[in-house]
Amino acid sequence: MFELHHQLEKDSLFAANAGGCQIRVIQDARYFWLLIIPEIEDALDLHDLDPFSYDRVSRLVRHCSIGLKRAAGASKMNVAAIGNVVPQLHIHVVARNPSDAAWPQPVWGVGTPQAMSPTEQEWRLAVARDLASTFTDTMV
Amino acid sequence: MFELHHQLEKDSLFAANAGGCQIRVIQDARYFWLLIIPEIEDALDLHDLDPFSYDRVSRLVRHCSIGLKRAAGASKMNVAAIGNVVPQLHIHVVARNPSDAAWPQPVWGVGTPQAMSPTEQEWRLAVARDLASTFTDTMV
Repeated sequence: MFELHHQLEKDSLFAANAGGCQIRVIQDARYFWLLIIPEIEDALDLHDLDPFSYDRVSRLVRHCSIGLKRAAGASKMNVAAIGNVVPQLHIHVVARNPSDAAWPQPVWGVGTPQAMSPTEQEWRLAVARDLASTFTDTMV
Repeated sequence: MFELHHQLEKDSLFAANAGGCQIRVIQDARYFWLLIIPEIEDALDLHDLDPFSYDRVSRLVRHCSIGLKRAAGASKMNVAAIGNVVPQLHIHVVARNPSDAAWPQPVWGVGTPQAMSPTEQEWRLAVARDLASTFTDTMV
């Protein structure tokens, strides 16, 4: 039975389900940053996913990266599965810009998360929900 | 026409081709760290790959992550496409351990690369070549 890690629960807001994953929004105004979390018990490394789930999750990551880049007007997308601190498998999809707080460094461990305004939060959740609703696991 | 970015050329050694990619070994004794570089002109974000190439590259990443974890005796694999500094698409596959130089932080921007011994270098290249030769782009 899948249970979300308490740290991921604390750091992010649930937006929607798609492709067997939760899509969540990291609570940090500095970056439009999604987490994609396969609801699969005991998955730690990305390669722990069986080939079918792996392909599906990878395609969801691609879909979210394309859509988030457009929605956020980002100049670069960062996609990563790290998990050294929180071991439960989670994939970061982060919209980056040369003016953001960590550029050109990766976002992890830089400074302190900043609170979002209610309007910003609602907008980000709506973008994430739209990405979930437009995802279809097809090769195209 | 694909041309490798000079910084990637400088930081890593060519090991083999597989799945339309170069597999390269980062020149840093501190981590067993592979780069997977699709030989596709003008690819910057991971999602710039068309769906067919994306699936193939993703499967190569999975194959390398599984094999490198085993070969290196790693406790965690870090997989990432970042590219804020070097824009040409390159995917990091890094074998991590709690005793390594950056743990639990990501490896980027931490300290200075350390030279590998010739023996270590040859072994890492042999592991990478073996991963290339055992890759088959199939679902199973």
